[in-house]
Amino acid sequence: MNDIIQKIIKFRDERGWAPYHNEKDLAISISLEANELLENFQWRNSEEAVAESIQNIKEEMADVFIYLLQLAEKMNVDLEEEVFKKMEKNALKYPIKKE
Amino acid sequence: MNDIIQKIIKFRDERGWAPYHNEKDLAISISLEANELLENFQWRNSEEAVAESIQNIKEEMADVFIYLLQLAEKMNVDLEEEVFKKMEKNALKYPIKKE
Amino acid sequence: MNDIIQKIIKFRDERGWAPYHNEKDLAISISLEANELLENFQWRNSEEAVAESIQNIKEEMADVFIYLLQLAEKMNVDLEEEVFKKMEKNALKYPIKKE
Amino acid sequence: MNDIIQKIIKFRDERGWAPYHNEKDLAISISLEANELLENFQWRNSEEAVAESIQNIKEEMADVFIYLLQLAEKMNVDLEEEVFKKMEKNALKYPIKKE
Repeated sequence: MNDIIQKIIKFRDERGWAPYHNEKDLAISISLEANELLENFQWRNSEEAVAESIQNIKEEMADVFIYLLQLAEKMNVDLEEEVFKKMEKNALKYPIKKE
Repeated sequence: MNDIIQKIIKFRDERGWAPYHNEKDLAISISLEANELLENFQWRNSEEAVAESIQNIKEEMADVFIYLLQLAEKMNVDLEEEVFKKMEKNALKYPIKKE
Repeated sequence: MNDIIQKIIKFRDERGWAPYHNEKDLAISISLEANELLENFQWRNSEEAVAESIQNIKEEMADVFIYLLQLAEKMNVDLEEEVFKKMEKNALKYPIKKE
Repeated sequence: MNDIIQKIIKFRDERGWAPYHNEKDLAISISLEANELLENFQWRNSEEAVAESIQNIKEEMADVFIYLLQLAEKMNVDLEEEVFKKMEKNALKYPIKKE
C-alpha cells in the first residue's frame, strides 16, 4: 500500500493541493465520495446498480479510497494496523456464536 | 492488502453475516461510517478534532476501510488497480500547471 | 406546510415516480442531497462558500427539504409535531445552565 | 413554519450555541443527521425498518429538519420559497410525459 500512497501524495503535490488538505476537509471529502458511490444505488437494488453502473461504482470506490489514504497519510496513521486493531475490538463486541 | 481482506471475510463468515452483505447495503454502510468519522470534526477545526478525538478518528477510518474492502471483495474489484486507473483519468482532468 | 406537500406529491404523481418512493430510497436520497449541499463547503470556509455558491446552496437545501417532506408524507409523519417533541426531549438532555 | 423557527432559535440562544453555528458546520450536521436517519435502514428493507424503528426514524427526521431550519435562518433563506423555485426548475428538467 506504500506505493499507492506515494503516488497519491506526488499527484497532490504536483498540483499544489497540499495546503487545502486539512483533516476536516478530507473527512468531508470521504463523505462526499461515499455518497457519490451510494448514488449509483438510488431507486435500484444491488443487481440493477451493478449491471447498469459498474464502471462508475468502481471509480467512486477508488475516490473514497484515495481520500481515505490521504487522510491517513496526513495524520500519520497506518490504515492496515488500525483495521487489525478494530477487528480485535469487534471480535470482543461480536463473539462467534457456538452452536 | 490480501491478508487484510482474507481476515475481514473470515470475520464476516464466522458470524454468518454474508447473506446481509449485498452491494447496496455495503454502500450505505460506507456512507454511515464516513459520517461517524466526520462527526469528530463537527463544531471544531482540524487541530481541535485531532487533539481531542484521535482514537475515535482512527477507529472510524478503519470502519470505512473495512466496508470498502468488503464491497470490493463482493464485487471482485481490485481497489489498488482502480486507484491507479482513476489517477490516470484525474491526471488528464487536472493537468499539472507549468510555470 | 400542507400546500408545499400537496404540490410536491402532485409533481411526483404526474411523473409516475410514486412506485420508486419507498422509505429506504427516500432516506438514501436525503443523505445524497445533504452531501450535495455539503460539497459547496469543501476546501472552503463558510464565508467563501456563501459568497461563491449561494444559489447552489439554496437549491440543495430545497432538495433536502423536498425529500424530507416526501418521506414524511409517505410515513404519515407530521414533521412540525416531531420537531416540537424532539425539542422537548433535547431540553431535558441539554438543560439551560443557570449562572 | 415561523413559529417553529423562532422556537429553535430561542432554544439555541438559551444554550449559548449561536457562536458555533456557522454555515459549514450546519451543513456537516445535516449530513450527519441524514446518516443517522439512514442507519435505521441498514441491512433491512423499508418495511422492516419502519416496523422496528419508527420512533427513531421520526426523531432523526426531526433532527435533519431542525438543522436545515437553522441553516436557513442563519442564511436568511425562505425554505418554502426555495422549494417552489426548485420545483419550477425541476418541472422544466423533467417534463410530464404525455401519452
